[in-house]
Amino acid sequence: MLERYGHGGDLWTAEEAFGRPKEQFLDYSSNMNPLGPPEVVKQILQESWRDIVKYPDPVVRELTQKLAAKYDIDPASILVGNGAAELIDLIVRVLQPATTGLARPSFSEYEEAVHKSGGGIVNIPLFAQHQFELQWSDVEARLADVDLFFLGHPNNPTGKLLPSQVIQGLLQSNRHLVLDEAFMDFVPKEREHSMLQLASRTPKLTVIRSMTKFYSIPGIRLGFIVAHPDLIARMCQLQVQWSVNYLAQRMGSAVVEEEVFEQSTKAWLRVEKPWLIEQLRQLGLEVVPSEVNFLLFSFPEAFQITVKDAQRYMGHQGILIRDASLFEGLDDRYCRIAIRLRADNERLLLVLRQFIEQFTKNGGVTRA
Amino acid sequence: MLERYGHGGDLWTAEEAFGRPKEQFLDYSSNMNPLGPPEVVKQILQESWRDIVKYPDPVVRELTQKLAAKYDIDPASILVGNGAAELIDLIVRVLQPATTGLARPSFSEYEEAVHKSGGGIVNIPLFAQHQFELQWSDVEARLADVDLFFLGHPNNPTGKLLPSQVIQGLLQSNRHLVLDEAFMDFVPKEREHSMLQLASRTPKLTVIRSMTKFYSIPGIRLGFIVAHPDLIARMCQLQVQWSVNYLAQRMGSAVVEEEVFEQSTKAWLRVEKPWLIEQLRQLGLEVVPSEVNFLLFSFPEAFQITVKDAQRYMGHQGILIRDASLFEGLDDRYCRIAIRLRADNERLLLVLRQFIEQFTKNGGVTRA
Repeated sequence: MLERYGHGGDLWTAEEAFGRPKEQFLDYSSNMNPLGPPEVVKQILQESWRDIVKYPDPVVRELTQKLAAKYDIDPASILVGNGAAELIDLIVRVLQPATTGLARPSFSEYEEAVHKSGGGIVNIPLFAQHQFELQWSDVEARLADVDLFFLGHPNNPTGKLLPSQVIQGLLQSNRHLVLDEAFMDFVPKEREHSMLQLASRTPKLTVIRSMTKFYSIPGIRLGFIVAHPDLIARMCQLQVQWSVNYLAQRMGSAVVEEEVFEQSTKAWLRVEKPWLIEQLRQLGLEVVPSEVNFLLFSFPEAFQITVKDAQRYMGHQGILIRDASLFEGLDDRYCRIAIRLRADNERLLLVLRQFIEQFTKNGGVTRA
Repeated sequence: MLERYGHGGDLWTAEEAFGRPKEQFLDYSSNMNPLGPPEVVKQILQESWRDIVKYPDPVVRELTQKLAAKYDIDPASILVGNGAAELIDLIVRVLQPATTGLARPSFSEYEEAVHKSGGGIVNIPLFAQHQFELQWSDVEARLADVDLFFLGHPNNPTGKLLPSQVIQGLLQSNRHLVLDEAFMDFVPKEREHSMLQLASRTPKLTVIRSMTKFYSIPGIRLGFIVAHPDLIARMCQLQVQWSVNYLAQRMGSAVVEEEVFEQSTKAWLRVEKPWLIEQLRQLGLEVVPSEVNFLLFSFPEAFQITVKDAQRYMGHQGILIRDASLFEGLDDRYCRIAIRLRADNERLLLVLRQFIEQFTKNGGVTRA
């Protein structure tokens, strides 16, 4: 399976599993912005050949300042990391919660970090009948058992924002709340929904941001966390020296100023998302409405096909999709795909249609 | 001071402290190979613009295989890290020694890692009268108090290899021995001295290698650790997902095959090191013989000058040197410098001579 090491986007495993060179795959299994990376990234790579003979800035001064300016936050409330993954690990190691509440399904790195630190997990189910939106009543029912809530905002793989009732309820609950806003930049009204500013001055609220999805630079690793300065200082002490490489710092400093890229991305997604959802529905698939650049869908029970069949079939055709049944809380009919550019999306739909026609017992809804 | 964040090579702090743009410093405070990076690194940066839209290989397959082949080691005994700093942190977190024995002076990250994991430190002094070579009698005297020994081989900032009596003694002592071979590639008879192969099959011996000094790519972060496969598996579990970025993996895979670069480096150092040592001695400085690409020296007591004076004077002239008095076990007369190419070294000597002439009470030995 593609997710042998826990995640999508693993082209090395794809090459082994599907017998094609890794350059030849169309990757719908990781959620990168198809407009990226911005041109400035190319320029930096070409100019930086002599600069990598120097150590990175150990305290990431330039990028921290630029993030502080962009989001209007005190720099002392910001820590840049070697990808959001490092920051997920650091915040859990610093807070050492006895129990962590996780929505199910959600990103598996939260659970990994909790296991590493020796804590317990409390599952808070998301339900298909609520379109996987977290319900305050389900949170409240488990409040007494939980020290820390680690929640995606929006959540991966469902693409749903947290309802403000849940955020407000948790802020008043005196539990620590860590929000993973890895995909928040893709949300149309990002500034209204993001909790970055509040996190910079609230001891029990922390927000993690990835910079690799929106700017399509996962290869270089970059993320940041916003928390109360005391918490930032404690994470700093645990962070490994020079953890954030020079190119990541330099690219980060450049891309945060790419406003045209930002607008183009939002403009593309405004058109492409509803179109792709509609096309998938025409194939008979059950699509969860999403706030971001990826979609969770399921094959209807009547099809009698599993996502593993789909992943295998499509992998051999050179298209990688994410087996979402590997997320706790989803069964083997669930699949997650990124939203890409139109020509790619058309190819995805074509191969998906072929798969459905060949594998469903009744030939699929398209022949119905 | 330059080492505000614990190390040399911090050009951002240099810019703040000495009021020059960071591009204008000649950096003798970090120990990079002046022949690097190899040309292939430039090529990779120029070709990789589209590749960083992909996640790095989560288990670093290609580079691990190449290291295994180069050093004739089982790949299961190798873990690649986000710089040696990450691996120093991981091995201490996995082993959790109650007490760690450190030679003084030595690289400060060992102590940092021990403090983070809550362990205690046992100091094993190095003495100037032994040219800072670790003596087995000094190790043996503290053996009963120490669970793990963390030693530089060769040691930083002294440039001395461990005597084989010390290594053999510790291997027989049933204590865990971690050797930091960050600078081993610079040692003339590297293969004779390196403990890499033995570490791959010895449960109580671990070796850490940096790839950033020899190949001059500290900006990108890259190192590896060789240990018994059981220990590698435990470190893997703690390592953050995608910790080693794509460019580091790709550059590492390319530079390990650069044999001509390797030979040129050794040829350059064979000539330049004795020459520079001789020149420094002609200035009246007390130079410790070194196996590697950096030198520890001290200002004679008669000069009545400190390394802080020297760092300030030279920093304003655009030359950065390492204040070695910040290493526990050295006083304020000690300085560490990298060995660079001849023209740079001549400039270093010129400014150092000016400093000595202006600051020593008797005008320095050069006027004597």
